[in-house]
Amino acid sequence: MAKNQTKNDVTKKPRKTYGQKPYQSKGKKTSASKGATVKNKKSAPKKSAPALPLRITPLGGLGEIGKNITLYEYKDEMILVDCGMSFPDEETPGIDIVIPDFTYVLANADKIKGLFLTHGHEDHIGAIPYLLKNFNVPIYATRLTLGLVEAKLKEHRLLESAKLNVVKPGDIIRLGAFSVELIHVNHSIPDAVGMAIRCPAGLCVHTGDFKIDTTPIDDKVIDISRFAELGREGVLAYLADSTNVERPGYTSSERLVGESFSSLFKKAKKNRIIVATFSSNIHRIQQIIDEAVNCGRKVAVSGRSMLNVVNIAAELGYLNVAEGVLIDIEDIKKYTPDKLVIVTTGSQGEPMSALHRIAAGEHRNVEIIPGDMIIISATPIPGNEKLVSKVINELMKRGANVVYEKMYDVHVSGHACQEELKLMLSIVKPKYFIPLHGEQKHLAKHSMLAQSMGMAKENIVVAQNGNVIEVSPKAVKIADHVTAGRVLVDGLGVGDVGSIVLRDRLHLSEHGIIIIVLTMDSVTGEVVSGPDVVSRGFVYVKESEELMAEITELSCDILERCYYKNRGDWNSIKLKLRDGVSKFLYERTRRSPMILPIIMEI
Amino acid sequence: MAKNQTKNDVTKKPRKTYGQKPYQSKGKKTSASKGATVKNKKSAPKKSAPALPLRITPLGGLGEIGKNITLYEYKDEMILVDCGMSFPDEETPGIDIVIPDFTYVLANADKIKGLFLTHGHEDHIGAIPYLLKNFNVPIYATRLTLGLVEAKLKEHRLLESAKLNVVKPGDIIRLGAFSVELIHVNHSIPDAVGMAIRCPAGLCVHTGDFKIDTTPIDDKVIDISRFAELGREGVLAYLADSTNVERPGYTSSERLVGESFSSLFKKAKKNRIIVATFSSNIHRIQQIIDEAVNCGRKVAVSGRSMLNVVNIAAELGYLNVAEGVLIDIEDIKKYTPDKLVIVTTGSQGEPMSALHRIAAGEHRNVEIIPGDMIIISATPIPGNEKLVSKVINELMKRGANVVYEKMYDVHVSGHACQEELKLMLSIVKPKYFIPLHGEQKHLAKHSMLAQSMGMAKENIVVAQNGNVIEVSPKAVKIADHVTAGRVLVDGLGVGDVGSIVLRDRLHLSEHGIIIIVLTMDSVTGEVVSGPDVVSRGFVYVKESEELMAEITELSCDILERCYYKNRGDWNSIKLKLRDGVSKFLYERTRRSPMILPIIMEI
Repeated sequence: MAKNQTKNDVTKKPRKTYGQKPYQSKGKKTSASKGATVKNKKSAPKKSAPALPLRITPLGGLGEIGKNITLYEYKDEMILVDCGMSFPDEETPGIDIVIPDFTYVLANADKIKGLFLTHGHEDHIGAIPYLLKNFNVPIYATRLTLGLVEAKLKEHRLLESAKLNVVKPGDIIRLGAFSVELIHVNHSIPDAVGMAIRCPAGLCVHTGDFKIDTTPIDDKVIDISRFAELGREGVLAYLADSTNVERPGYTSSERLVGESFSSLFKKAKKNRIIVATFSSNIHRIQQIIDEAVNCGRKVAVSGRSMLNVVNIAAELGYLNVAEGVLIDIEDIKKYTPDKLVIVTTGSQGEPMSALHRIAAGEHRNVEIIPGDMIIISATPIPGNEKLVSKVINELMKRGANVVYEKMYDVHVSGHACQEELKLMLSIVKPKYFIPLHGEQKHLAKHSMLAQSMGMAKENIVVAQNGNVIEVSPKAVKIADHVTAGRVLVDGLGVGDVGSIVLRDRLHLSEHGIIIIVLTMDSVTGEVVSGPDVVSRGFVYVKESEELMAEITELSCDILERCYYKNRGDWNSIKLKLRDGVSKFLYERTRRSPMILPIIMEI
Repeated sequence: MAKNQTKNDVTKKPRKTYGQKPYQSKGKKTSASKGATVKNKKSAPKKSAPALPLRITPLGGLGEIGKNITLYEYKDEMILVDCGMSFPDEETPGIDIVIPDFTYVLANADKIKGLFLTHGHEDHIGAIPYLLKNFNVPIYATRLTLGLVEAKLKEHRLLESAKLNVVKPGDIIRLGAFSVELIHVNHSIPDAVGMAIRCPAGLCVHTGDFKIDTTPIDDKVIDISRFAELGREGVLAYLADSTNVERPGYTSSERLVGESFSSLFKKAKKNRIIVATFSSNIHRIQQIIDEAVNCGRKVAVSGRSMLNVVNIAAELGYLNVAEGVLIDIEDIKKYTPDKLVIVTTGSQGEPMSALHRIAAGEHRNVEIIPGDMIIISATPIPGNEKLVSKVINELMKRGANVVYEKMYDVHVSGHACQEELKLMLSIVKPKYFIPLHGEQKHLAKHSMLAQSMGMAKENIVVAQNGNVIEVSPKAVKIADHVTAGRVLVDGLGVGDVGSIVLRDRLHLSEHGIIIIVLTMDSVTGEVVSGPDVVSRGFVYVKESEELMAEITELSCDILERCYYKNRGDWNSIKLKLRDGVSKFLYERTRRSPMILPIIMEI
């Protein structure tokens, strides 16, 4: 592969050799999109000097699943690929979403020419509003992806000012030293693309999320031949999705799910059918609609995000629905069960989702009728297993017949399994390989997979967020480390919940809080009121009056003892109260609630 | 099957027909075990009258995984089978373990003749100390099971008074109207038994946890032929383990894991090997030790529960270890990596376990050496997936080579899959079937499995904890409902954490607490100190001084406004403070911390 690297110099390879139409922005014309066709020759002025290395900095998506964002840097120009969010876990209670730390992006805002999106999933676009609030970077994405971004920006009142550019597979976008070619890939959302990213240092292939589906619903198979052409041309670095690297074999085709729907819909007979799936899986929804039409059933949609996506997809032509098929969820009472299919959110058991509300008997329009066939067309994302089980159990208790992944082929993944990953490696034939999108175990396994195909370990970089990976035809190395991490979004607060607040929340959730409050005369140091003991989340006070009385008594003792010694030194008195009560409670109950002494002065 | 039911009357079938030695207790002789051979004729005095129904009441283990306990009741006599605990989940923060509600057991203590144990796992024996504190019921169990119970009782200082009886497969224990025959089954712990429970109403088969392993490590295959004999005799009700009912096919033999160990240990070459597994899986540990000996390695054990079980199993002869093989974990530094295997706890990623401490670099004796081969010989229990992934990722970051279930056959389940469950149903041929051990979805699936074999739906009872299932040769029905549920253990507190405390803990964990404290003159109603605002788990105060000042100001305003209206009515004033601040914060931050106003009086 190394001998091909010289071909990668984009200045030697005019655009027309790709056989594609020149790039033309179809979005709102902005100054940035006008700037997009600037010749890139000027960015490599010293023609005789060897090309500088390309610097690739993943700012999210490594060592984790989610919040994917990667920065490509050549000389003094940069482009971003994706800008996703991730979800909170048990260590971040109360947090709504997690976004990347944009410190390094914002510090380089003047160098960053554009943000390219691979597809419209939250882990690739979810953090865009938070970036755009600080840095109005031009965005390049395919039509559906941009449609989903637009909805998001509208909510955040950022749509008017945003610089959005519609692009499509085959387009080549030139921004400064970079040119980015979009290549169609299969995934669990339509309009997903991988990218060929060129700069004077060489050619990179960046897959985004992908799978190889040779019988996709829209008949558009991943553009393997273009990846193969790039491989023949010589790929310097390959950055690929590692999500499913632990799974052997091939990911099944989306069409398999349609076949399952077909046989299940027949089995439902006279009963109502409710299908829960990911709102963004438009091909899945298309198959549900098609099968409903086959069975003479109407389709009602429930769940805010599902309605949102269905509307966008239908409007943009990604969903084909004959007139009269879709009905309003309010109107389902006008139809008998055998004439209905309800498509809902909640396939992950999310507490506020439509399916969760149905299971809890709290849905405004849908109440389970015994015999309802409920298809959960999804696999629980790690961490959601128990939530999903709970919903299944509740639905079954109400007499529903629940079909979920373990039983039938009602879901296929959107990510490539081992054989697909190996196939891509074999055709892209990169000099260097940087596994993306995965926890340490996924990245390591992807590296092992490449090594099993003969790739040298030193040509593979298992990196961490913030690592600056320098890539040149001569070498690859982690050359630097920049600020990268997570920022927690809690309500309207972005970044105001840090480790101390989280530690307190976790402590409070374990054993609650005991507040010891008293009023002291600031002159005499005499306790004029209290100590009063108030607790929350510790024990039910009415049933533990004795224990609370003992805490009060102990507090009085401690105050008396330190009254002369620490007169006026409120902090010492507080510390003594905290330690004394804490020790007493641990001995008595083996619990460690937070102890919070408050001293008021008059 | 129905026509065989008359055979079930134990009074017509003398014990000798089983071809077994009469039951003889080998444990501590207690009055209860003396009473165990009482003839059971006297419990059916009206010989001519038709037998009364048997009442089966699962008090735990239905609609959930864990805390298995089932009560069998005939006339005025009862026996218990198992007495397990379960683990807390995200809805019960701070809770250590969950035990069954013993209300109904204690109300019937004078009728309950004995507690029979199927095997020594926590979900079948873990709640015994909490029962014995209130009711010293005689316990019947196999040797290893009893060894594990003894260790537990010792910790709770209950061993001296406990009435423990060692029994073995083939034994028949007669207690009042009941006789209980123990039948050997395979499971992921040795010495597991199923039971044939007889009373004048008929014969029940109760499997406990089981699988069919035709090549088990101790060469003792499940006693299929005895189950078949019982089936031919005529089984009134069959109560069976549903844990793995969602999995098609057969569960692999434990021996498969040994083969994997064998090839992995060879692959480890000069590197150290660390294997994490369930401490109670003694056959697994035996295989690790055997393979270590084969490779000329010593074995060190880390983790309190692992040491505990290894000691008990070795002492009772369930673990065969040649002298000099086991070394103290303190001594591992005396050996080179290629001479060492370390067996640890922590295969579920438990935060305080040995493997977790190793991954975090906090283990006193074991620090990862790059190249260490770490085998996680377990599957994550639902809910533990993320914990396990975290440990794997951390170990990999330290340079370890981690082998876990998705890659190789380093774990097999201890529970029967669909084909085994069907096989058992086909040989036990019960009149009625009551699936046990499972959430609603497992019980429903087990019912469907039985129906697929031709069993009538009305002969299958998918019950809930507390249902009293009346079984007689003529009919099966849920005849009653008794108190059943969960009791939460938090530190030394048993049952003192209820729904209000849990709700508070969850609320506190979401958005923390804001305390507004002030001192009022009880005569004039004047505020003499405060309001002071203190927060924990809400925002980091130093970075949000402005917001805190606004809350203080708002509190002052509210106090001023309600000063004249609600003079002296502390509760109204508190309510106004809470509502006012709560509303303000939601508008400002979209968060809802707990608001706690405290008014001190002088």
